[in-house]
Amino acid sequence: MLGNVIVGQSGGPTSVINSSLAGVFKTAKDRGANKVYGMLHGIKGLLDKQYVDLSEKIKTDIDIDLLKRTPSSYLGSCRYKLPEISDDRDTYEKIFEILKELNISYFFYIGGNDSMDTIKKLSDYALLVGSDIKFMGVPKTIDNDLAVTDHTPGFGSAAKFIAATMKEIIRDGLVYDYPTVTIVEIMGRNAGWLTAASALARGEDCEGVDLIYLPEKVFDIDHFLERVKEIASKVIAVSEGIKVMDGRYVFELSDHVEFVDAFGHKQLAGSAKFLANKVGSELGIKTRAIELSTLQRCAAHMTSRTDITEAFNVGGAAVKAAFEGETGKVVVLKRVSDDPYMCITETHDVHQIANIEK
Amino acid sequence: MLGNVIVGQSGGPTSVINSSLAGVFKTAKDRGANKVYGMLHGIKGLLDKQYVDLSEKIKTDIDIDLLKRTPSSYLGSCRYKLPEISDDRDTYEKIFEILKELNISYFFYIGGNDSMDTIKKLSDYALLVGSDIKFMGVPKTIDNDLAVTDHTPGFGSAAKFIAATMKEIIRDGLVYDYPTVTIVEIMGRNAGWLTAASALARGEDCEGVDLIYLPEKVFDIDHFLERVKEIASKVIAVSEGIKVMDGRYVFELSDHVEFVDAFGHKQLAGSAKFLANKVGSELGIKTRAIELSTLQRCAAHMTSRTDITEAFNVGGAAVKAAFEGETGKVVVLKRVSDDPYMCITETHDVHQIANIEK
Repeated sequence: MLGNVIVGQSGGPTSVINSSLAGVFKTAKDRGANKVYGMLHGIKGLLDKQYVDLSEKIKTDIDIDLLKRTPSSYLGSCRYKLPEISDDRDTYEKIFEILKELNISYFFYIGGNDSMDTIKKLSDYALLVGSDIKFMGVPKTIDNDLAVTDHTPGFGSAAKFIAATMKEIIRDGLVYDYPTVTIVEIMGRNAGWLTAASALARGEDCEGVDLIYLPEKVFDIDHFLERVKEIASKVIAVSEGIKVMDGRYVFELSDHVEFVDAFGHKQLAGSAKFLANKVGSELGIKTRAIELSTLQRCAAHMTSRTDITEAFNVGGAAVKAAFEGETGKVVVLKRVSDDPYMCITETHDVHQIANIEK
Repeated sequence: MLGNVIVGQSGGPTSVINSSLAGVFKTAKDRGANKVYGMLHGIKGLLDKQYVDLSEKIKTDIDIDLLKRTPSSYLGSCRYKLPEISDDRDTYEKIFEILKELNISYFFYIGGNDSMDTIKKLSDYALLVGSDIKFMGVPKTIDNDLAVTDHTPGFGSAAKFIAATMKEIIRDGLVYDYPTVTIVEIMGRNAGWLTAASALARGEDCEGVDLIYLPEKVFDIDHFLERVKEIASKVIAVSEGIKVMDGRYVFELSDHVEFVDAFGHKQLAGSAKFLANKVGSELGIKTRAIELSTLQRCAAHMTSRTDITEAFNVGGAAVKAAFEGETGKVVVLKRVSDDPYMCITETHDVHQIANIEK
């Protein structure tokens, strides 16, 4: 009998993060794992001894199939970065003590950049103290900003939602006979992949988005207004993370604070709203701002089938690799053919992936 | 050979307004109409002689099928209310002159309350001047606020989108281990049907929305804050049109103007944003506001099949009735059975429908 397994989810939810959880669970059980625990609210929950025995929750193949198709994080999530090992060994001692109590041999963490940092630090610490627990990262993020992997599970479904929704917004924006500008704000603070996915709206049935502004390129407001004036009556996609020359986010230029919460945190209006304001007041064109908001990350009703399968597979591949002795690795997707589209899984050293934004 | 037909679309776009257009076109052609014209941008466009010969655009059954499944208004739309006949006969003379030039015998207008008012006035004027052009209204509106008809085509698809999206937002909101409140703003300035559709999120797979606020009931901000405090960590649906005791819309209470456009029109933040501000600042709970915005009216990727069929059928029924001599009528849906669900079409005097909000 193999030792026990623990798995956690971290960062923002996606449509398919549970598919990876299902992949980890099923493969671990199929390959003879004893118990499969789930941390609640990631590593932060584990530090408070919050976990469940997943075998008690997931009993049949139908349960696995349902989990595979349920959006958002079944186990809950956290946004928490482990301290440096040299700064705070206590936290690590505590985690490894809890893992020992649960007789854990294999640790899987499904998430993005910060989560891969967790795998890096835990596997480094294991090396340091001679623990033979295997630590594996399972990639997920709608932002698609993870290094090495061809793409991240979660991105495909979000991109599909964005492309379809942009088509519909474009169609909706065409009905009146006066100029209108629609500015759609898309997620991805530092990575433009999702905003770029709006380009997929163009096709036989749709003229596509007219302007796309990514966070990777300096945003020039005057130039933007000139372009809008030239084209009028159009649909524009902007990243939530567009920045001007001096490095400030466009939404930070807003002089009105939407509200200040009880902790004194200022909530600012988004980039799209700020720009709609500019277009309306300076060009006198009817303008509206649409924030796709959380709809883009959990739109399970149009999840990509390929995305579900790939998310499931990277979970399974992580288990297989760990059971065969690998640790300190991340499962990545490698594209072996464009036409027909084919990706295989590989494992890759977490040190070359954690904390690097693609 | 029958005379010519003209058809127009008016008001906000929906997922299925083109299905009704397809129903009018196909039935008119099948029943031997000569030409079928389409007004561009409704009656306002017609006054500027903007129209197309639809037979030149729609040539095959596949074209009809595509049109049936294309969201938003193919012919463009307008928001324009005809003057009273007694105030301005010139406008009517001009319209009837254009109809005469085009040799029109049948006039169809697809739209909501304002559009039915157009049919009422035009058929009244026809009676007044002894014209034998037949005028028929074809109902559409996501708001579902038309009298007599069981429901309006367009509502079902919007309700389906709202129910599915609320499920996803609820799932997304559950992942962190601290209280969060999500306030979702739904269309329908005066009618709560769409906001009420958020109740459909509840089911075996979802605990449903926690609070729903319709525009038909006076909104009490203090009571709202108390309820939110009691339940915490929840998802709330509010209509864009909720009003406080003195009759002002909740969004009018906001002391910050989002922006003033070149015409001096103030754009106010929405109800959800205003309330999220209140909850954040007064209760200190992490809160976000989501506006479903135009996504809810044109989400063709999840249009209801029944809605498409019914929209097509009301278009066809309008043509049949007009060709058989009816005028000054609206096609309505009558539910003849709940289980199995069955609706038939009937026609109803436009005077009992126009300008009445259900």
